[in-house]
Amino acid sequence: MSQFWSPGVHQLTPYVPGEQPRQKLIKLNTNENPWPPAPGVERVLRNFEIERLRRYPDPEASMLREALAREYSVAPEQVFVGNGSDEVLALAFQAFFLHDAPLLMPEISYSFYPVYCRLYGVEQRTIPLDEQWRVDLDGFEGEHAGIVFANPNAPTGHGHDLESIKKLLQRMRERVVLIDEAYADFGGESAVPLIDDHPNLLVTGTFSKSRSLAGLRIGFAIGSSELIEGLDRVKNSFNSYPLDMIAIEAGIAALADRDYYEHCRRAVMATREHTRQALEAMGFEVLPSQTNFLFVRSTHQPAADIFAALREHGILVRHFNTEQLNDFLRISIGSEAEMQALIEALGEIGAR
Amino acid sequence: MSQFWSPGVHQLTPYVPGEQPRQKLIKLNTNENPWPPAPGVERVLRNFEIERLRRYPDPEASMLREALAREYSVAPEQVFVGNGSDEVLALAFQAFFLHDAPLLMPEISYSFYPVYCRLYGVEQRTIPLDEQWRVDLDGFEGEHAGIVFANPNAPTGHGHDLESIKKLLQRMRERVVLIDEAYADFGGESAVPLIDDHPNLLVTGTFSKSRSLAGLRIGFAIGSSELIEGLDRVKNSFNSYPLDMIAIEAGIAALADRDYYEHCRRAVMATREHTRQALEAMGFEVLPSQTNFLFVRSTHQPAADIFAALREHGILVRHFNTEQLNDFLRISIGSEAEMQALIEALGEIGAR
Repeated sequence: MSQFWSPGVHQLTPYVPGEQPRQKLIKLNTNENPWPPAPGVERVLRNFEIERLRRYPDPEASMLREALAREYSVAPEQVFVGNGSDEVLALAFQAFFLHDAPLLMPEISYSFYPVYCRLYGVEQRTIPLDEQWRVDLDGFEGEHAGIVFANPNAPTGHGHDLESIKKLLQRMRERVVLIDEAYADFGGESAVPLIDDHPNLLVTGTFSKSRSLAGLRIGFAIGSSELIEGLDRVKNSFNSYPLDMIAIEAGIAALADRDYYEHCRRAVMATREHTRQALEAMGFEVLPSQTNFLFVRSTHQPAADIFAALREHGILVRHFNTEQLNDFLRISIGSEAEMQALIEALGEIGAR
Repeated sequence: MSQFWSPGVHQLTPYVPGEQPRQKLIKLNTNENPWPPAPGVERVLRNFEIERLRRYPDPEASMLREALAREYSVAPEQVFVGNGSDEVLALAFQAFFLHDAPLLMPEISYSFYPVYCRLYGVEQRTIPLDEQWRVDLDGFEGEHAGIVFANPNAPTGHGHDLESIKKLLQRMRERVVLIDEAYADFGGESAVPLIDDHPNLLVTGTFSKSRSLAGLRIGFAIGSSELIEGLDRVKNSFNSYPLDMIAIEAGIAALADRDYYEHCRRAVMATREHTRQALEAMGFEVLPSQTNFLFVRSTHQPAADIFAALREHGILVRHFNTEQLNDFLRISIGSEAEMQALIEALGEIGAR
C-alpha cells in the first residue's frame, strides 16, 4: 500500500511465470523448445556490426513484418510485431476490449488474460470448459466487449479445427475475436486464412515456442489492416521501438529457415507422442495435445506430491495450484533424452 | 475510425520519433551517440551460446538491476529496468499518475509525455518555460497527480542543479516527481543521491544515449523500493519479460567498462563545445546544453529552410514544427568529422 501509487495498482495481481531456476534442472515447466534456434540466428549474432547498435532500430520493424507477411501469405499491413506475444496481447486488450460489456474467455486458459483485465479495468465473464476439457465455443454468447482464448488452449492442450472457428466467427462479428496461437505450430490449425473474411479476427503468435527464441522476445499479431492500425496507435503511444535490432534480425533469420523449423516442430510432436504413450502405459490420464506440452493427471497420487518428488529428481514441471487444475501436471516436451529421464523418474517415484 | 477499437483509441495521437532514413545521411536528428558501444558488448554477441536463446530470460533481469545498483550506489530493490526508457516512462505514468488531478509538466519537454497522458486518460497542466528557455521549477504548484520533466530538458538542453531539484522536492511530497535523466550523463547533475530522502522521487535513465545502445532498448528507473514495487506490479501485469537475454547481458557489459564510458561522454561533450563555438562564430544563437545535442536558432533564416537545405547536403537534423519551436533546430552531437561537415554545409548554405 502506497500513497504514491495510482489507485488501481493496489488491486493488481501480477501474472506469475514459470520458474527460471538458477541450478541445473531438466526444465519441463515453461514450454520452451528443446531445439536450439535456427543456425541463421547464430550467424546474425556472430556477424552483427556492433557499431550499428548505437542507432535506434526501425520503429516499425518493417523487415520482420514483411517476413511474417510472406510466411503467412498476408499483406505487411496485416501484421503487427511486439516484444513477445505477452506485450502484443496486452496492447490488444487496450486497443480492442475497453467496451462497456464483459470480455468473454474460457474459465481455464492462459492465466495472463485475467491479469490484463485487471490492468485495464476490463470486466470479464468466463465460460467453463466442456466435459472433455475443451474450450466451449458455443458458450461464447451474449453482450460482450470481445472474445479471447488460446487455440490450442493452454494448459489443457486441445485445439479446435478451422470449421469450428469459422462457425464462431460467423456468429460473432461485432467485437474483436482474439485467438492466441502460441502453440498452433505443434499440430493446431491456424485461423490466419480466415482473416480476409473476418475483419474482427486477430490472431497472435510467438517466436518463443516453435522458433526456439523465448530469450529474444518476439511476438506478432495478424489481422485486418483496421485492427493492425488500432494496435499500432496504441503501440506508438506506449513505446516507439519495442523490438531491438538483434531481435528483429534474428526473427527474420528464424523465419528464413523453413526446413529447420519443420524439422524441429515435427521432432517435438514425435517426442510428444512417445511421451504420451509411455505415460498412458504407466496409468496416467493424458489429455489430447496439439501443443508442445502434455496435461497429465494421476489416478493415484496428488499431483503436488509428484511435482515435489520430480523436483527432488532434478526435473521441473508445472503445477497450477488452483482448485480446478490441482490434479494435473503440465509437462513441456523436452528432448527425447529429457523425456526418457522423466519417465524413469516417474517410475522410481512409483507415480502412475 | 473502427467499430472494433476501444473508444479511446480514436483520440490517440502517437509520438513521432525522429526519422531513421534508409539512405546514407549524416544523422544528427535522434541524439544517438557517435561512439560505438563498449568493446565488451561485442564480446557478448560473439560469445553468446546461441542454444540459450530457446529459454526465457530472467523476468526480473536481476543481474542488470544489480549492476545498475552498483553503478548508482543504491540497493537492487531501488532499481527497475525496462524495454527502453520509453517503456519505463509509460509504465510509470500508469503506476503513479492516475490520480484525480492534473499531471504537471513543462510546456516544452519530451513530447512523449502528453502522448502517455492521452493513452492513460491523465489530465495535464503545462507550465511555460522561463525566459531563458529553462524549466520553471517554481511553476510546479497546486493540486496535482504528479510532476514529470526531463533534466536536462529536451529539446532545449538546459539542466537544473541538484540544489534546485532539492528545493522542488522539499515542496512536493504528496505525489511522484518523475525526473527523466535521459541526457544527464552529458553534464547534468543526477538526482539519484536524493532518493533516500525522498520516497516520491523517481529518476529514469537510458542506455540509448551515453551507453551507445539505442539499438538494444534498455531503460531504467531508480527510486524508493515503494515506487519500484509499484512499477513491478504494473510491469508484471503487462509483460513478464520485457528485456531479452542479449539486451540484459550487453547492458551489464556496457556498465562494466567505466573508462570507456567516461572517455565517450567526455569526447561528446568536447565536440559539443567545439560545435557550439563554431555555430556562435557563424552568428547562430545556441542555448546552453548539458546534453548530447544543441538547440540552435538562426537570426536570419527560417529554421525550416535550413533544415531542408541541410538535408540536400546529406545532413539530417531535427526540426519541430510547432509554433513555439518553429525557429529552432535540434542538432545531435555526432563525431568531430560529422560536426565539421555540418559547419561546412551551413557555410555553403549561407546560414547564420
